[in-house]
Amino acid sequence: MTIESLVSVLSRLPGVGKRSAERLAYFLLSNKDEARLVSSVISEVIDSVRFCSLCGNFTQVDPCSICSDLSRDNTVLCVVEDPRDMTAIEGTGLFKGLYHILMGSINPLEGIGPDKLRIAELQQRVSCGSFTEVLLATNPTVDGEATFLYTSDLLKNSKLRISRLATGIPMGASLEFTDSLTLKKALEQKLYL
Amino acid sequence: MTIESLVSVLSRLPGVGKRSAERLAYFLLSNKDEARLVSSVISEVIDSVRFCSLCGNFTQVDPCSICSDLSRDNTVLCVVEDPRDMTAIEGTGLFKGLYHILMGSINPLEGIGPDKLRIAELQQRVSCGSFTEVLLATNPTVDGEATFLYTSDLLKNSKLRISRLATGIPMGASLEFTDSLTLKKALEQKLYL
Repeated sequence: MTIESLVSVLSRLPGVGKRSAERLAYFLLSNKDEARLVSSVISEVIDSVRFCSLCGNFTQVDPCSICSDLSRDNTVLCVVEDPRDMTAIEGTGLFKGLYHILMGSINPLEGIGPDKLRIAELQQRVSCGSFTEVLLATNPTVDGEATFLYTSDLLKNSKLRISRLATGIPMGASLEFTDSLTLKKALEQKLYL
Repeated sequence: MTIESLVSVLSRLPGVGKRSAERLAYFLLSNKDEARLVSSVISEVIDSVRFCSLCGNFTQVDPCSICSDLSRDNTVLCVVEDPRDMTAIEGTGLFKGLYHILMGSINPLEGIGPDKLRIAELQQRVSCGSFTEVLLATNPTVDGEATFLYTSDLLKNSKLRISRLATGIPMGASLEFTDSLTLKKALEQKLYL
C-alpha cells in the first residue's frame, strides 16, 4: 500500500477531490494516532450498524430507538428519502410520529425505480399498522416529486390521510433572490389571515 | 461505537465540518465495502510509512525514491516547509535537485520555534553534503518569511549560494485584482528586457 493508494481511496469519498484527499492523507500520515482511531472507528461502526427492520434507518439495535419509543405518536408516519432528511426533521423537535426511510428517490436515468426503494415495505407497514396519516416528506426536487407522485398514488385508495410539507419562501430569504418556481409555489399556496 | 462517534471522529479531520462528516458517515454506512477498504488502507499505509532520514519526506523505503535517485542533481538543495510543497515543485518538472523538508514553519504564537523544525538536520546536511546552492522555497506568508529569514541567516556564513523563489503576479491573474503587496513585489523585482 503506497501513499498514492491512500490518496486515491480517500478521493473516492463524496465531496473529497484530489487536493482534499492529499490534504487528508498528509494529515493522517502526520497524526498516526488520529489515523488509527479513524480507521478503527470506521471498521467498528460499519460492523455494528445494520438497518432498522421497521423504518429502514441505520441502527445498532433493531428496532431503532425511534421505532421502539412508545411515547411517540404511532398514528402519523413521515416518509423521507434519506436518513439525513429524518435527522433534519427530528432537529425541529416538532414531529412526534414515526418515520419510514425510502433509501433514495425515483430516478429512471440512474436506473432507480420504485422496486429499488423501500416502497413495498411502506405499503406493508401502512396496511397493517396503526397509522391514520402519512406525511410524504420527499425533497422538492425532480426525483423527490416523482417519488411523491408515485407513493401518493399508491396510497390514495387507502383510508389514510396523505399530507406533504409546505413549499414556499424559506425563512430569512429575500423575495428578490428567491427563484420564480419557489415564488410561484408561495403564491399558489398563499395563506389567508 | 455509535454512528455519532463516527461523525465526531470524521469531523476532526482537516476541512471536514459537521455536515461533511455526517455526509461521509452516511456514505460509509451505505457502502460498507468501500468503508472497509478506507479503514484498511489507512491502517496499512500508516503502519508502513516513515520519514526519509535525508529529506524528511514520508516514505516507505529509506532513503526515499527522490533522495536515492542518482540521476538527480546533488548540488542543489530545495528547502520546503511541507511535503505538499515538494509535490507542487516536483509537479513543474523543472527542478532536478534534491529536497529538504522542514515539516512546518516558524510560528512563535503556536510555539513552533526553529528547534521544532528540521533545521538542525538541514545544517548538518549542507555542511557535509555535495551542495553548492540552497533554494529556500518557503511560502510567501508571515511564517514562511520568518522561516526564510532564519534559515538564510543561518546559512549566510557558509560558501553556499542561497536563492529563493520569485514573488510577483501569478500567471493568469489580472492586475486589477492583485493585492497591493504582490504588486509591490512585482514592481520591486521588475525584469529588464
